[in-house]
Amino acid sequence: MAMLRAAKHAMRSLGSTAPDAAPFSRMLHASPGSKKIVGVFYKANEYASLNPKFVGCVEGSLGIRDWLESQGHQYIVTDDKEGPNCELEKHIHDMHVLITTPFHPAYVTAERIKRAKNLQLLLTAGIGSDHIDLKAAAEAGLTVAEVTGSNVVSVAEDELMRILILVRNFVPGYLQVIKGDWNVAGIAYRAYDLEGKTVGTVGAGRIGKLLLQRLKPFNCNLLYYDRIKMEPALEKEIGAKFEEDLDTMLPKCDIIVINTPLTEKTRGMFNKERIGKLKKGVLIVNNARGAIMDTQAVADACSSGHIAGYSGDVWNPQPAPKDHPWRYMPNQAMTPHISGTTIDGQLRYAAGVKDMLDCYFKGQEFPAQNYIVKEGKLASQYQ
Amino acid sequence: MAMLRAAKHAMRSLGSTAPDAAPFSRMLHASPGSKKIVGVFYKANEYASLNPKFVGCVEGSLGIRDWLESQGHQYIVTDDKEGPNCELEKHIHDMHVLITTPFHPAYVTAERIKRAKNLQLLLTAGIGSDHIDLKAAAEAGLTVAEVTGSNVVSVAEDELMRILILVRNFVPGYLQVIKGDWNVAGIAYRAYDLEGKTVGTVGAGRIGKLLLQRLKPFNCNLLYYDRIKMEPALEKEIGAKFEEDLDTMLPKCDIIVINTPLTEKTRGMFNKERIGKLKKGVLIVNNARGAIMDTQAVADACSSGHIAGYSGDVWNPQPAPKDHPWRYMPNQAMTPHISGTTIDGQLRYAAGVKDMLDCYFKGQEFPAQNYIVKEGKLASQYQ
Repeated sequence: MAMLRAAKHAMRSLGSTAPDAAPFSRMLHASPGSKKIVGVFYKANEYASLNPKFVGCVEGSLGIRDWLESQGHQYIVTDDKEGPNCELEKHIHDMHVLITTPFHPAYVTAERIKRAKNLQLLLTAGIGSDHIDLKAAAEAGLTVAEVTGSNVVSVAEDELMRILILVRNFVPGYLQVIKGDWNVAGIAYRAYDLEGKTVGTVGAGRIGKLLLQRLKPFNCNLLYYDRIKMEPALEKEIGAKFEEDLDTMLPKCDIIVINTPLTEKTRGMFNKERIGKLKKGVLIVNNARGAIMDTQAVADACSSGHIAGYSGDVWNPQPAPKDHPWRYMPNQAMTPHISGTTIDGQLRYAAGVKDMLDCYFKGQEFPAQNYIVKEGKLASQYQ
Repeated sequence: MAMLRAAKHAMRSLGSTAPDAAPFSRMLHASPGSKKIVGVFYKANEYASLNPKFVGCVEGSLGIRDWLESQGHQYIVTDDKEGPNCELEKHIHDMHVLITTPFHPAYVTAERIKRAKNLQLLLTAGIGSDHIDLKAAAEAGLTVAEVTGSNVVSVAEDELMRILILVRNFVPGYLQVIKGDWNVAGIAYRAYDLEGKTVGTVGAGRIGKLLLQRLKPFNCNLLYYDRIKMEPALEKEIGAKFEEDLDTMLPKCDIIVINTPLTEKTRGMFNKERIGKLKKGVLIVNNARGAIMDTQAVADACSSGHIAGYSGDVWNPQPAPKDHPWRYMPNQAMTPHISGTTIDGQLRYAAGVKDMLDCYFKGQEFPAQNYIVKEGKLASQYQ
């Protein structure tokens, strides 16, 4: 693949008009010899030593250092990913593989891709590769792959937690406790049961389906909007009703959960106008991507009470700056980007990254569902 | 019943040795005429007007004032329940019915019962009547009844929320957000999936069963300890394994949920010794009653890390004083007593109280499952 990329680059430099698809007709494999692999993870500092299973941080390095180095590969790991003098920048020009995560995203821009002359493979430890310019990666002949499925359970569980936290008004109760207060009314006047409420998911892919399955015993009215209608048997088992039109579904919902990837179609999907058409007092859970929402429109609707609660772990950008309005808006139950990086999730996506690196070294295919960019084409959910 | 009680009282005063059971052979009914009904609820102040369905507070008065007064009854409502000069004390001597709640419990002691010469009926708006001295109530010939089932869904949902909050380490993430921080590692090093964990419930009555049903799609290992083993068909449907011995079950559990009433048998059940035998890093959810735990033993085990997380809405006493150690122990996700008083729960227990008052006025029986003390006998769960 390195040779293919080099050939393609040379053809472009020469003004070749050869069709783009041609150079990708062979499967991905590493050229022989030592590879330089760079991983960008969040740093754990004093937390690193507190749990031996904590592999998702810089210090844990996905638990693959010995394995890589014993095969003669170089493995650089850092959390320093921004600005012209960051550690990542030092390795852009000669790295072969870049491993990133959605939790502490290294933004892989077209400009960085252009400078990464040796780069062949971009692996996302987790799910969601929108921090990578996928079109630029496709044009450059790179392969992009995720550990599909590695943390879908983790995220779905977290979404259900956030639904309950909002519906039942947990946060003001907790804050009373730590402030020495006791005022049941101040919580109860807007605490509800989840039972009987209408919950709609925007997107019912792997995570959305797991969420709906976990919601079933709560006796809600479940709706889903997706590109694809489920098979009737699965739909019946899950107990959710398909909605063909997003804007027909949304105003029916007491609770909206976002389960769609960030693409050019979904960026800013929840703008002022669309939020204005939602039920007054709607609750929104978004563990998908922060940029699916118009940041200020959400903050304004929380302030006005049109949105009665907003919870999620995704922000635009990440890390969220100290003055991000979602930190200060009323009725939020936000956290840093955490839902997919539970210890269980980390162990699964670390194993998945190792498996793909092993395939890469051996010239073998990855599991088909893992590919986000392959042979110049984007996976369907990113098209 | 008033006459029965008067007769019994007279017999006692006369040193009669008539068997205690005899005076209770007739069903409860009100003597004709106007009744004085006292309700003790939490006060809502500025929150009262924010939701027209907010009936569970002093201001909402269960929504039965017009209905009671139109029938010529007197209805006193207060939140002032403690000390010799409180509002409740002014009405002890001549009230016929006292309505209380577990959320802002009026402690109905033997001494108060003795002074309540006209008292016939004690109604709990909600579930859990341990704030009433039930033996004293039984001996005095009073009827005690709850709105059984009124908020079991509310409490079960809340328990599942708390399990997820602890397993996934939500609170430190939220606190980072409001403090302007961003440290994924500080959350992730001890955040887990619920999937695959062992969850045991101490008690599998109405609430415990609803919790287990809601846990089923999470693919946990579910255990339950109860006085009664479920029917095999129900056990299979719920997917939980019966444990005959409490102390055999507890050390198997990653997560323990308390779903047993407070009785003399369960008071202080989780003392230092029993907590010491739990799995290190256990998570505990207790929405049952605070006094089931040894307060200091829980605080100490949270400080040492033996208990890795404790969440619940019940305290001993309530309201929890400002210096209650559970407010300040690490890894707690506590709230004031709220889980059973969602707006949906309030509407159900208000309707249930109204129904029972109507039965009382008409000399009709209550639904059998509502009785906690009837004709001198305690309901089985309180024996």
